[in-house]
Amino acid sequence: MQLAKVVGTVVASQKESSLEGIKLLLVRPVDEEGREIGNHLVAADAVGAGPEEMVLIASGSSARQTRLTDKRPVDAVIMAIVDSWSIGGATKYQK
Amino acid sequence: MQLAKVVGTVVASQKESSLEGIKLLLVRPVDEEGREIGNHLVAADAVGAGPEEMVLIASGSSARQTRLTDKRPVDAVIMAIVDSWSIGGATKYQK
Amino acid sequence: MQLAKVVGTVVASQKESSLEGIKLLLVRPVDEEGREIGNHLVAADAVGAGPEEMVLIASGSSARQTRLTDKRPVDAVIMAIVDSWSIGGATKYQK
Amino acid sequence: MQLAKVVGTVVASQKESSLEGIKLLLVRPVDEEGREIGNHLVAADAVGAGPEEMVLIASGSSARQTRLTDKRPVDAVIMAIVDSWSIGGATKYQK
Amino acid sequence: MQLAKVVGTVVASQKESSLEGIKLLLVRPVDEEGREIGNHLVAADAVGAGPEEMVLIASGSSARQTRLTDKRPVDAVIMAIVDSWSIGGATKYQK
Repeated sequence: MQLAKVVGTVVASQKESSLEGIKLLLVRPVDEEGREIGNHLVAADAVGAGPEEMVLIASGSSARQTRLTDKRPVDAVIMAIVDSWSIGGATKYQK
Repeated sequence: MQLAKVVGTVVASQKESSLEGIKLLLVRPVDEEGREIGNHLVAADAVGAGPEEMVLIASGSSARQTRLTDKRPVDAVIMAIVDSWSIGGATKYQK
Repeated sequence: MQLAKVVGTVVASQKESSLEGIKLLLVRPVDEEGREIGNHLVAADAVGAGPEEMVLIASGSSARQTRLTDKRPVDAVIMAIVDSWSIGGATKYQK
Repeated sequence: MQLAKVVGTVVASQKESSLEGIKLLLVRPVDEEGREIGNHLVAADAVGAGPEEMVLIASGSSARQTRLTDKRPVDAVIMAIVDSWSIGGATKYQK
Repeated sequence: MQLAKVVGTVVASQKESSLEGIKLLLVRPVDEEGREIGNHLVAADAVGAGPEEMVLIASGSSARQTRLTDKRPVDAVIMAIVDSWSIGGATKYQK
């Protein structure tokens, strides 16, 4: 999974019908210090994440293993909101 | 999922029979400002996207989770046409 | 999917038995102008592609969605021979 | 699979319910000499790995082929703790 | 699939039980001339490959489509030993 930050939202009214009701968020991966790195991606929100929150992203077929995304054409899902992470015993991020 | 722009079309008459009737479009990923980045890819069109439109691409096995692409050898699908996206509350793209 | 060019062949006599009868081709991805880019990969040939032909490659589990590759340990398949592609209305490649 | 080192832990209380009881570890891929390379990722721990241990990571749908992760939205799993590896007959890492 | 060279072995005694009996090899992708490129990865050996042999690697869910790896948490498998490959009619590698 990837640590990422919620940075925005995407609106799409014309879409595959099975996507109705799925909230699409723009996220950007972050490094161990919480700094945004790399390109954004779009993820379905399975946990009610808010703007600027640190989240966990599951990709590929694993993105469909939530009640929200089951059998949907979705290849990335926010499946957790991160409280904190630590490296070598030192807290690097605390919500 | 990836934000991408429809840039062209691909014609292939000799193909796996299950691909009959599937429209293949050339798309290029875009950055948060809508600028084309990286290499093009070819995606099946499940929503009737037109040239220059901003779309959402699902990849991998998730690309087969539409009525059009079910059980087809297709690893990328356009499953939504994007109306707009915003970052930090500011609209970055509006159709 | 990726646009790619058939550049060679691979011979392997000692292999998983389910691979018997599958032709393995070396392909290289091409850019929008048809120039070879990036590293080669090996793909199963589901459509009878010949040397130097431009083809479409499906990867991952989607590579197993052809009669030839079903349930085989194959992660890339040539599932179409490309006749032409165009970008912004201009033909970039014509067979 | 990838050789990686356990470098930290991630805490997430608000999450998809199927993730309850799954320990999430921060890992970093290592090169042949055991040096950390590239970006960290988050993996579910199926084997009770400890801090600084060298482990094997399986990604994608294969990450769900353990009793712990079956049908969970998890795209990376620690499925082995590495005792040693060798290259060209020379031991490069020994626990 | 990827052309790769067997460069070493990995030993892991503490692991997911379904991995018992699976031999794990270190491999490195090679370019068209057979030179090692990029980072190593760890693959399950389904064909009895020996040190320094050129092999084919299947990745992702396709890595589980062998008798050895079926339903195992394995995302890369050696499913063939390469005898030779040629590009543009010229033999680039011969065992």
